[in-house]
Amino acid sequence: MGLHIVVLAAGKGKRMHSALPKVLQPLGDRPLLKHVVEAAQTLDPECIHVVYGHGAEQVQSALGYLDVNWVFQEQQLGTGHAVNQAIDAVPDGAQVLVLYGDVPLIRAGTLSHLVDAAGDAALALLTVVLDDPSGYGRIKRDDDNRVVGIVEEKDTSADERYIREVNTGLICAQASHLRDWLSRLTNENTQGEYYLTDCIAMASGDGVNIIAGQAGSVEETQGINDKRDLAVAERLLQRRQAEALMAQGLTLRDPERFDLRGALRAGRDTIIDVNAVIEGEVVLGEGVSIGPHCVLRNCTIGDHTQVLSHTVIEHAVIGSRCQIGPFARLRPDTELGDRAKIGNFVETKKIKLGKGSKINHLSYVGDARVGDNVNIGAGVITCNYDGANKHVTTIGDDAFIGSDCQLVAPVSVERGATIGAGSTITKTAPADSLTLSRPKQFTVEGWKRPRKDNPGHD
Amino acid sequence: MGLHIVVLAAGKGKRMHSALPKVLQPLGDRPLLKHVVEAAQTLDPECIHVVYGHGAEQVQSALGYLDVNWVFQEQQLGTGHAVNQAIDAVPDGAQVLVLYGDVPLIRAGTLSHLVDAAGDAALALLTVVLDDPSGYGRIKRDDDNRVVGIVEEKDTSADERYIREVNTGLICAQASHLRDWLSRLTNENTQGEYYLTDCIAMASGDGVNIIAGQAGSVEETQGINDKRDLAVAERLLQRRQAEALMAQGLTLRDPERFDLRGALRAGRDTIIDVNAVIEGEVVLGEGVSIGPHCVLRNCTIGDHTQVLSHTVIEHAVIGSRCQIGPFARLRPDTELGDRAKIGNFVETKKIKLGKGSKINHLSYVGDARVGDNVNIGAGVITCNYDGANKHVTTIGDDAFIGSDCQLVAPVSVERGATIGAGSTITKTAPADSLTLSRPKQFTVEGWKRPRKDNPGHD
Amino acid sequence: MGLHIVVLAAGKGKRMHSALPKVLQPLGDRPLLKHVVEAAQTLDPECIHVVYGHGAEQVQSALGYLDVNWVFQEQQLGTGHAVNQAIDAVPDGAQVLVLYGDVPLIRAGTLSHLVDAAGDAALALLTVVLDDPSGYGRIKRDDDNRVVGIVEEKDTSADERYIREVNTGLICAQASHLRDWLSRLTNENTQGEYYLTDCIAMASGDGVNIIAGQAGSVEETQGINDKRDLAVAERLLQRRQAEALMAQGLTLRDPERFDLRGALRAGRDTIIDVNAVIEGEVVLGEGVSIGPHCVLRNCTIGDHTQVLSHTVIEHAVIGSRCQIGPFARLRPDTELGDRAKIGNFVETKKIKLGKGSKINHLSYVGDARVGDNVNIGAGVITCNYDGANKHVTTIGDDAFIGSDCQLVAPVSVERGATIGAGSTITKTAPADSLTLSRPKQFTVEGWKRPRKDNPGHD
Repeated sequence: MGLHIVVLAAGKGKRMHSALPKVLQPLGDRPLLKHVVEAAQTLDPECIHVVYGHGAEQVQSALGYLDVNWVFQEQQLGTGHAVNQAIDAVPDGAQVLVLYGDVPLIRAGTLSHLVDAAGDAALALLTVVLDDPSGYGRIKRDDDNRVVGIVEEKDTSADERYIREVNTGLICAQASHLRDWLSRLTNENTQGEYYLTDCIAMASGDGVNIIAGQAGSVEETQGINDKRDLAVAERLLQRRQAEALMAQGLTLRDPERFDLRGALRAGRDTIIDVNAVIEGEVVLGEGVSIGPHCVLRNCTIGDHTQVLSHTVIEHAVIGSRCQIGPFARLRPDTELGDRAKIGNFVETKKIKLGKGSKINHLSYVGDARVGDNVNIGAGVITCNYDGANKHVTTIGDDAFIGSDCQLVAPVSVERGATIGAGSTITKTAPADSLTLSRPKQFTVEGWKRPRKDNPGHD
Repeated sequence: MGLHIVVLAAGKGKRMHSALPKVLQPLGDRPLLKHVVEAAQTLDPECIHVVYGHGAEQVQSALGYLDVNWVFQEQQLGTGHAVNQAIDAVPDGAQVLVLYGDVPLIRAGTLSHLVDAAGDAALALLTVVLDDPSGYGRIKRDDDNRVVGIVEEKDTSADERYIREVNTGLICAQASHLRDWLSRLTNENTQGEYYLTDCIAMASGDGVNIIAGQAGSVEETQGINDKRDLAVAERLLQRRQAEALMAQGLTLRDPERFDLRGALRAGRDTIIDVNAVIEGEVVLGEGVSIGPHCVLRNCTIGDHTQVLSHTVIEHAVIGSRCQIGPFARLRPDTELGDRAKIGNFVETKKIKLGKGSKINHLSYVGDARVGDNVNIGAGVITCNYDGANKHVTTIGDDAFIGSDCQLVAPVSVERGATIGAGSTITKTAPADSLTLSRPKQFTVEGWKRPRKDNPGHD
Repeated sequence: MGLHIVVLAAGKGKRMHSALPKVLQPLGDRPLLKHVVEAAQTLDPECIHVVYGHGAEQVQSALGYLDVNWVFQEQQLGTGHAVNQAIDAVPDGAQVLVLYGDVPLIRAGTLSHLVDAAGDAALALLTVVLDDPSGYGRIKRDDDNRVVGIVEEKDTSADERYIREVNTGLICAQASHLRDWLSRLTNENTQGEYYLTDCIAMASGDGVNIIAGQAGSVEETQGINDKRDLAVAERLLQRRQAEALMAQGLTLRDPERFDLRGALRAGRDTIIDVNAVIEGEVVLGEGVSIGPHCVLRNCTIGDHTQVLSHTVIEHAVIGSRCQIGPFARLRPDTELGDRAKIGNFVETKKIKLGKGSKINHLSYVGDARVGDNVNIGAGVITCNYDGANKHVTTIGDDAFIGSDCQLVAPVSVERGATIGAGSTITKTAPADSLTLSRPKQFTVEGWKRPRKDNPGHD
């Protein structure tokens, strides 16, 4: 009859001290809830029901595109109440897996294992073994090791207090049973809430078969309630991602100083030095090296290209055997041919730079089409903006642009042209010739340097 | 009768291999001793006595401003001798708390708890429970769990060796008792020193009431003896600060890569990416984001301003909804209006930049007053220094400065003026007009490029 | 009769997913094998025999210069087979120490201790005590604590399973015995390989004296099989190096964020802030401070010089009391006199800069000889490359180069000369005079700014 997954995502997360509802807090740049839904999707369920409430508009605006059944919970009256909002949409005979929008690191494997273990048992609990179980509901088993119930902290006997297997809150239940239990829940407790966990006692009372599957690690079952939890989870996620990439052969100089907030593919013998921050979709070829302290966002980098330290690249496509940085900043729509070189303090934007061309120092080249084997000197600026519109600069193959030139777009430098240092180029520089604009150098003899007005202070 | 605190700060710290006395070694950019005095001050004592000796001049010059009673210990003859230098200034009936200038992470809460617990007991010891107590003096208790003395490592019996509660050296004593014990100390030991700990045996021998209060963690009682200890303490301090900020709602992408050397206040939904170094007094508004690898020092940043990666800001006041970086360097006395933009490879100093104004690329703007909605192109330089004096550049609202211009100060660009690319502006550029200085562009036909002198090598 | 060391280095390291053979994978920028050979060399052996095989050409090309006896193992038929390739070159009566090219962090002290302990025992094993020994061969001892053999995991009895002392594979044996055991090895096992460990059972069977020496830590005996192991080892190496430097007095703000890939010497009271990456041979004087996020490679930095954040220095010699950065990039053959200053967004290469000279902002100075007390303004560029050859710029003492000048090399600015802002200097600027090239400033009245073509979008 298939699997239905209910994700509880209606909480506020007061301890986050944030205008953002808890389930939208970012982990690896994706909202917590998205992590949970992605884990849920791997199980290929009939339907994922997301119960949302606090910050409903924000949730819808951020994640409304998700292919889930959105269930609005107007008042947050407890976990049992929340599941109850979704249960009507679940047919009898289905299995219902309950997840939490603030438990983002749950592993798909753990979930599928729980669902499998549940089989046609009325109820399966995900449990975890803690070194220090205090505060958690303990799992009671009989002499045959079968789960017979759960004992809340306050009700534990001296012996039960030592039980280290605790309830995580994640359950998998038969819809018909769950519907029945939910209908019998009451809110007669200190908080005045309807608790999903109370279903376990009912199951136990009903004498139905209760299964318990243990999570692989405590970490994956950890809920996130404040920014400290969030930071811990961020590091766990990063470590997990780093481990996976290293297993595939990526060299990370320090996995603890590696942040991936998106997806990375990397070829053989590629190495990433310390403190890389990688965002969006990044593809690195074979033998690529990324230097220390770089930021890469949505880019593709060809084989054997070297990105030196302190480089920022976003939305760029870079050929093979290029050299970039240090201190380079490649802005969106930068496209570099093979063997191109971008040096220090150089900014590019919306350019196509041909094979073997170089911009080595202190330049801004934007809105430009540059041919092959072009050498752009230090301090060259494409004046692409006239205060109202952007214009294009075109530079032909083999051109040589002297240092500190301004190319006032729209303008063309034809193939093989040479531009003298310090020139302001406002019209076409013809092919294979030297073009320049330069006032005569002269010397003022007998000129005296200014003196310090007030030698007393700077 | 009030609380007197004696801080022992006379040691050299030979293993530091430093010209700086140990208590001046920096932790979070403040001397170790300052941390201890600050913790002491939270107890609101009658007087803090600091016993100093080694590097006396350096200590006085660095911390002489502290509101404490400086007690000079000419010869360092042991901890007992050190406390004895200060005891004359303490009235009978007072409580005396003894702290150490090289135990900087002691928590105020631990101290006040110890002082409270001491009450009118003759002596209270701060103890700590160690996994491996070897090398430390063990706390002996009787069957009623009352402290009866301390057993030094060398004197421990086989059973006592397993006692894990040890002495930290921090004590709180009645002045009259302490005065008496100190007067009875001898230096008949291997080191020939007067040990404060020997007072504990005397107290025990006197049969007075000895209290022991346990520290919350081993870390806070750790003394600093070499640069390894210092590095460990630096990380503990940083972790403590990060935890406190996260509890208040600050998002830190990685608390292990966050250095605060001063004081930080941050509004709601502000996020700090990896590797920030924050020094002095820094105030961040709401919704501020600080990118990776930034350094901030003594600055105020308005709501929703984005500081992109690799940015250095010092002594600046920044409006709201600004965008700064990457690779920007804002030097002292930079003041940015709301929605201002400072881009890559831009340096500012002593400037006031109006609302919505932009300096996007490769510029140095210093000693300048810039109006609102001004666009400063790439490669613009205010020539503020004539080799002797600094001069001011004034730019009116809505001006547009073309790329690669030099503004030779003192000079004015009036409101709405446009400056053509590559110009050297030495006198007033009038309002609403185009001003430029530009030689004619010309082409040398038939010009031949230089050839490589020696094609054999580069 | 002396010590012979056999290093097994023939494996492929399939799980590395690399074109590089395993023993060439870099750790602290040196191949794994080099670490092992260096540790071996500290024992001053008669000969080091390196058994290599996979990637033979690469190994030879990378490390062929090592003073070792290279023994080529054509087929990799197991560790016993590998040692057998080398054993012919070892005289009877010698001690043979067997090391592994992929166990790079083994400490010299551990090895010399093992060799000493071995004495004239037939066989000495290096063992280690693990918390979880599962999977490893357990060391069996008799009631007198003498080693009587090794039990492989699969053969362990219930009791033996709890033995936590395991075999590391490193052995020291008498050559005559080892030769005999190797000759008796068979490959009748699942893998069809000749195992060196089988010698232990033979030794036990022969009733010879077997010694076991324990390694100081598990870490040093860890083999490297994939990129995760490599990353773990990299961090261990870095921590080891950081500890050693701190013990000598170096201040590291965060030892976990410090990478040394080469050799560092540092004077007293020198401090290195977070995230430094140090490569090659680096020498720092006394009182030097290195700011956050810097990269230093093969350079010497004089006393009390301050390197500010985000600075990259390679192959440079820097005087004392200089100030460099932030965002400076000193390229090879930069030589700075005392008190020189290099500011933000400045690149230097092949220059000699005199005492007290300054290049404070946004400049590229390459192939230049600059005198003392020279002030080079913002945006100055030495046009050292004409598209074919590099030329030299010479600047005399006390010269002042205005902002945004181009010095078109070969060219001289004589001592005391002043160059006006925005000039292109192509011939000698005479001493003590003002030289410039500057078009007249003029204003176009009534000029209208361009309008946005398409106000609808940007």
